[in-house]
Amino acid sequence: MSVQSLPTDSTDADARSAAPDDQTDAEPQTPSPARIAVVDAAQRAKAAARVLAGATRGTKDEALHALADALVAAQAEVVAANAEDVERERAGGMSPGLLDRLRLDEARVVAIADALRDLAALPDPVGEVVRGSTLPNGLTVRQVRVPMGVVGMIYEARPNVTVDAAGLALKSGNAVILRGGSAAARSNEVIVRVLSRALERVGLPGDAIQSIDAHGREGARELMRARGLVDVLVPRGGAGLIRTVVTSSTVPVIETGVGNCHLFVDAGADVAKATAILLNSKTQRVGVCNALETLLVHEAIAADFLPGALSALAAAGVRIHGDAATGALAGDDVDFQPATDADWATEYLSLDLAVRVVPDLDTAIEHIRTWTSGHTEAICTPDVTSVQRFTTELDSAAIMVNASTRFTDGGQLGLGAEIGISTQKLHARGPMGLAELTTTTWIVQGDGHVRP
Amino acid sequence: MSVQSLPTDSTDADARSAAPDDQTDAEPQTPSPARIAVVDAAQRAKAAARVLAGATRGTKDEALHALADALVAAQAEVVAANAEDVERERAGGMSPGLLDRLRLDEARVVAIADALRDLAALPDPVGEVVRGSTLPNGLTVRQVRVPMGVVGMIYEARPNVTVDAAGLALKSGNAVILRGGSAAARSNEVIVRVLSRALERVGLPGDAIQSIDAHGREGARELMRARGLVDVLVPRGGAGLIRTVVTSSTVPVIETGVGNCHLFVDAGADVAKATAILLNSKTQRVGVCNALETLLVHEAIAADFLPGALSALAAAGVRIHGDAATGALAGDDVDFQPATDADWATEYLSLDLAVRVVPDLDTAIEHIRTWTSGHTEAICTPDVTSVQRFTTELDSAAIMVNASTRFTDGGQLGLGAEIGISTQKLHARGPMGLAELTTTTWIVQGDGHVRP
Repeated sequence: MSVQSLPTDSTDADARSAAPDDQTDAEPQTPSPARIAVVDAAQRAKAAARVLAGATRGTKDEALHALADALVAAQAEVVAANAEDVERERAGGMSPGLLDRLRLDEARVVAIADALRDLAALPDPVGEVVRGSTLPNGLTVRQVRVPMGVVGMIYEARPNVTVDAAGLALKSGNAVILRGGSAAARSNEVIVRVLSRALERVGLPGDAIQSIDAHGREGARELMRARGLVDVLVPRGGAGLIRTVVTSSTVPVIETGVGNCHLFVDAGADVAKATAILLNSKTQRVGVCNALETLLVHEAIAADFLPGALSALAAAGVRIHGDAATGALAGDDVDFQPATDADWATEYLSLDLAVRVVPDLDTAIEHIRTWTSGHTEAICTPDVTSVQRFTTELDSAAIMVNASTRFTDGGQLGLGAEIGISTQKLHARGPMGLAELTTTTWIVQGDGHVRP
Repeated sequence: MSVQSLPTDSTDADARSAAPDDQTDAEPQTPSPARIAVVDAAQRAKAAARVLAGATRGTKDEALHALADALVAAQAEVVAANAEDVERERAGGMSPGLLDRLRLDEARVVAIADALRDLAALPDPVGEVVRGSTLPNGLTVRQVRVPMGVVGMIYEARPNVTVDAAGLALKSGNAVILRGGSAAARSNEVIVRVLSRALERVGLPGDAIQSIDAHGREGARELMRARGLVDVLVPRGGAGLIRTVVTSSTVPVIETGVGNCHLFVDAGADVAKATAILLNSKTQRVGVCNALETLLVHEAIAADFLPGALSALAAAGVRIHGDAATGALAGDDVDFQPATDADWATEYLSLDLAVRVVPDLDTAIEHIRTWTSGHTEAICTPDVTSVQRFTTELDSAAIMVNASTRFTDGGQLGLGAEIGISTQKLHARGPMGLAELTTTTWIVQGDGHVRP
């Protein structure tokens, strides 16, 4: 089908026959090569998605094992392609930390393949009856989970995300169109080819796993414009990438991952437990969205809690950006600098922590409401009223009571595989499992029923 | 707070500190009066939403009754304001049908008020525990329904939507910002003032129900740009309005209501039941999204079914846009014209029906996949395999088996009040009840738990 002969989606047709009163960008007379390529990829993905939607769990799980086997069988080729990416990026000045995230060795390929096998062990979300009833008139009503259709993923340098996304989409019955970072271009090219061919060998359409990396940034832009062909777009990466997708996409987006997380240590908190939660939240892994970025301390416990807590943080290499009250309680071992509003707003993703002493719970709640990205907030408190207020007056995806912020994670919360952590309110919020890659259909069965 | 001193939403802050690589519209140096007004309205709505989020069901239901009482008490004022709208629009040439949808008399005001009382009788979606468990490590996990926050509604001429939207938002704990059609401007102005003051009299913030009609189209555009202040936008109206909102809004949108609905009469269908379902689907109410627009008939039953069915449609005043096989079976009583592709694509919303004879179920499914808007498809069949294939191979919000398309309706399916019918896949699909105006929060409770 030519691009001009679209729509495959009649929402577009309706819009054309109607007269929208906005200034939508006019379609260029001649579509760009990237647009033609992305529309073609999306149409093939849509056709493949129809096959996957009808695939049984058995077929999909068998395919996941076949994908894992194919990756392991091709590990030499994958590692060689990845070495090209690593060498090019090293020469281009990529930092050692990012190079490590980019690098694949044979052990990592095996681990990635094992993750596909783990997916096969999870229940199939497709077909789950979410609600059901028989109405007074005898109609039977079921709301049933079905795949989304075509899922788009836009992400950055880590090639394991390529496999991860392909596996999650397959298990949930969706086709996937991948747009990875240019740093991993060669790795992704080989991985997608291996996975796509493995699908074909088990009798599923290879078009269910495609990459549009060859079409560069323009390809990514066209993916964001493919409304009606792509059902949902999931960006995974830094704040800049996510903001770009959210503001540019006409395809519905699930926003993931920006986490400016807070911990409030209330008056009367158990100092040892609070210190353990603080250290775990801040230092267990600093570059992730559920890591702690701001500590708020009730003034009634500050003198008991902060000197030891700040020293423990200093021993772990954490730099403190604090208010004056915090500075007054910091020992000589603490790397301290005064905090500004920029510190309250920042997701450091590093060994930095903003610290403020507050007079009461109200001030803590107001501080969090003002500065949070809505990811995870934690409270350490023995007080039931504080728990009640903290859990109901804040508006974030996850609230931890006497537990580390690091628990906001699909695996930790028992959801199995995790697509990402949504910080939006529509469709999915917090850790997203396979069910969040599905939608529902209402199936209503009667025997000649008409509406009175 | 001044507009320049935003963000109240730190996603914006993150975006500013990061460097997005797209060409997002730069913020003008001096915000327009409409932007200042809409941002101010949204900030006041956000503050009001915090109060509503903490309100008990008892408080909210009492408020719904107070709103109903206030509307009835003010019915003379409402009817007088509405008469101004009707007179102005009549002079401007509005059609009698639209004038009727615009018009309010005292009986209609009472009916609208009664709908608010009905809302009070429905269960509160807020606080419902969607999932919950105790993990092996002793953490207790609950996923709990909470209000969205601030809901925006953009709609057309019917002033009853103003009351409806305000009531649904209140019951689900949300503040609402309304943007109605200019045709109902005076009616909406009075209604919003009455409702807002009634809220204040029961001790809830009047800012929870606001209108931005005074700021015209520019106000609507600013509402669509108020990401971070407005949590979800629900357009209600024709395809043009919905398309404008979907393509222009950076606020997440729930797309409602375009329905190019199909009925397939399979070989072996009960002719009497199929005819009854056809007539009910097409003629019970023609201007609604769940009305039938295209009939597909299996060729094996066409000669038995179509002549009578077409005559029955003709008797009901329905014009037929059909293929040649249909034309050959249409009697002289039938107002027949040949169908073009435009007919398959059109949501008539009138006494018109597209009709095609197809050789088999495959062709029917392919026709629907090509042309549907994804709202509702129906099948009349005695065959279990046809049911299985029709319900699994199509990708629409609702599938009716041996039942009228008109059952795709929140009230008919037992959901209580209906916000609209979603034709998108994200968050809500098909009839939307109060639960679809909520999101969830994960509440995790421990006793000093840290992640190993």
